[in-house]
Amino acid sequence: MLGTFTFHNPTKLFFGENSLDFLREELPQYGSTVQLIYGGGSIKKNGVYDRVVAILKELGKTVVEDPGVMPNPTTDKLREGVRIARENGVDFLLAVGGGSCCDYAKAVSVSVHCDEDPWEKYYLRFEEPDCPIVPVGCVLTMAGTGSEMNAGAVITDPGTKLKIGHVFGDGVMPRFSVLDPTFTFSLPKYQMAAGIYDIFNHICEQYFSGEDDSTSDYLAEALMKSVVHSSRIAIQNPQDYEARSNIMWAATWALNTLIACGKSTDWMVHMLGQAVGGFTDATHGMTLSAVSLPYYRMICPHGLPRFARFAKEVWGIDPAGKSQEELAAAGLAAMEDWMKELGLALTIGELGATEEMLEGIADATIHLDGGYKVLSREDILQVLRESL
Amino acid sequence: MLGTFTFHNPTKLFFGENSLDFLREELPQYGSTVQLIYGGGSIKKNGVYDRVVAILKELGKTVVEDPGVMPNPTTDKLREGVRIARENGVDFLLAVGGGSCCDYAKAVSVSVHCDEDPWEKYYLRFEEPDCPIVPVGCVLTMAGTGSEMNAGAVITDPGTKLKIGHVFGDGVMPRFSVLDPTFTFSLPKYQMAAGIYDIFNHICEQYFSGEDDSTSDYLAEALMKSVVHSSRIAIQNPQDYEARSNIMWAATWALNTLIACGKSTDWMVHMLGQAVGGFTDATHGMTLSAVSLPYYRMICPHGLPRFARFAKEVWGIDPAGKSQEELAAAGLAAMEDWMKELGLALTIGELGATEEMLEGIADATIHLDGGYKVLSREDILQVLRESL
Repeated sequence: MLGTFTFHNPTKLFFGENSLDFLREELPQYGSTVQLIYGGGSIKKNGVYDRVVAILKELGKTVVEDPGVMPNPTTDKLREGVRIARENGVDFLLAVGGGSCCDYAKAVSVSVHCDEDPWEKYYLRFEEPDCPIVPVGCVLTMAGTGSEMNAGAVITDPGTKLKIGHVFGDGVMPRFSVLDPTFTFSLPKYQMAAGIYDIFNHICEQYFSGEDDSTSDYLAEALMKSVVHSSRIAIQNPQDYEARSNIMWAATWALNTLIACGKSTDWMVHMLGQAVGGFTDATHGMTLSAVSLPYYRMICPHGLPRFARFAKEVWGIDPAGKSQEELAAAGLAAMEDWMKELGLALTIGELGATEEMLEGIADATIHLDGGYKVLSREDILQVLRESL
Repeated sequence: MLGTFTFHNPTKLFFGENSLDFLREELPQYGSTVQLIYGGGSIKKNGVYDRVVAILKELGKTVVEDPGVMPNPTTDKLREGVRIARENGVDFLLAVGGGSCCDYAKAVSVSVHCDEDPWEKYYLRFEEPDCPIVPVGCVLTMAGTGSEMNAGAVITDPGTKLKIGHVFGDGVMPRFSVLDPTFTFSLPKYQMAAGIYDIFNHICEQYFSGEDDSTSDYLAEALMKSVVHSSRIAIQNPQDYEARSNIMWAATWALNTLIACGKSTDWMVHMLGQAVGGFTDATHGMTLSAVSLPYYRMICPHGLPRFARFAKEVWGIDPAGKSQEELAAAGLAAMEDWMKELGLALTIGELGATEEMLEGIADATIHLDGGYKVLSREDILQVLRESL
């Protein structure tokens, strides 16, 4: 805990069964016109849509529909959302769905009252909002991204195949999020597993960096252990409330800035995964799982004590009689076994990436330098080749 | 993670060396008259007072002095603080000190604009504030209570020897807290150790309760491990910034509601310790350490799996070849060894309690029922006798 930092996370969380009822307490303080943001319609099948709309009607809100948010929200969809908000004089953005809907809502929130094109302003020039921000609330139906309690928003430009995340300031965090683990019960197993790996990787990205002793890393290990434990239960029985609730809660705390406090972070797996996602439109969590092991095995020799600690603390591997190298390797092997148990993608080939795409993916990969080894373009190509 | 709950903690934290500079960003948004709350004057010796006053003057604030907050803030002092705030039309309460100053500031904050006597309203009748709350900010000079990021305030009535805590709603949380670990460097070793045990016990009180699998308990273990690790460094070298910073950060997260989310809690060690404190005026953390081991050994058979887990996860004890009872006992023995290393009080006798006080202390102990065994009055007397 050596860095100087600010922690401020005002998002109010309502957790548990029937936590949707808290919409009745929260929504009256915002204006009368609510833009209802959702995805492909799964919330209409599982009844969440009807429950939300009933509460909005009961509160006398005017509901403006904004469906069709795709897994990787596009620049065109973002521009459409901004247009809808402007045309209807929207006072509040209510996202009902997973991280894509929350991310999209935040990207719309900073763009409604700005004249410039949001993609250019926030994703190519990385500017901060200089216009009023429309408040956002989330009703989460999938655990994974942590978007419900942070200020990040990832948007994809299909034209240039660029998938870019912007982490805004505190003012862009959702005002509240409703986290009812039962809403995640109807999610297909593939999406659940992808979400679980997204959570786990968020923690890895913040854990595999730095050499100091930091409370943040102890908290990261705790979250990883809880996610691994609960994921093994959930993959067998997706209706296990206890397991699904722990996964949902761990997801939120994995990416709300807590475990990054006072320390360096890496994020190269996300940079690689996002580049793969830009080319394949594959599910986010699967793009991360597909590149993780080759990446971690490449950087492991450069951060050996942390990888050895990971093996001992997260995977419970007995260090007795093992060299640091052997211990670290055993940790990554245990992680690989767990990933196979969950049915995660272990190659980018199975996600649709081809040999011919590799140069383009490497070009689209944003280079960061927080990790144990700064990757050259050749290193990135090697990770991609080993992931193929 | 089985319970339904709300998490909302809007306190903004400024952490690290020179984080005091953030007062320049925060204070301008509040009114012009600031009540400066502090204790016995240690902040005048270590230079913090001068630095704070210089910033207040620079910002053009009117400073109203409110010194002399004692380790266990009294009802009389609370009434004095309310009078000072009213007479000067105070807009903001700035506490500079440890948990006592922060607690006191919060108790004043809910009382300035209320007609009734605060002790009777909040501590005997446990009512909620129904008047405007004066905003509070904290500059922390001692790590321990977690008061800098929660809505709790403990007050003592010397007349009746009652020491009572009230946890208020979100609106009573400090607007911001400044956490500069170097401000804790000049603290006497006895106070540092007491603060460390206060942190550790806050975590224990939330950990030793419930039988479900909860992410909160994994986080609790992480905080305990980090506190134990860093305390062993800090007790040897109180100027070790890394260790002191981890202790300070862990203290905040040990009692800002995070690790209680979705689970039951106990708090009987605090009830016992506060009753001892009411009779002896001993340092808070030492009253907790003095009663802990007899209490935990009494409840251990009723929560055996958790105590066995504590031994394995927090103290790294190998379970091989041990019964659950042996494992649990080994964990408490390791905890006792650590407590001796830190020089903590292990009896209430050394804090000034006598045989004659025991009946009175038992009468003053508030009975709670969240733990693995609900204590009868006879059980409480037994714990106190074993602590003597």
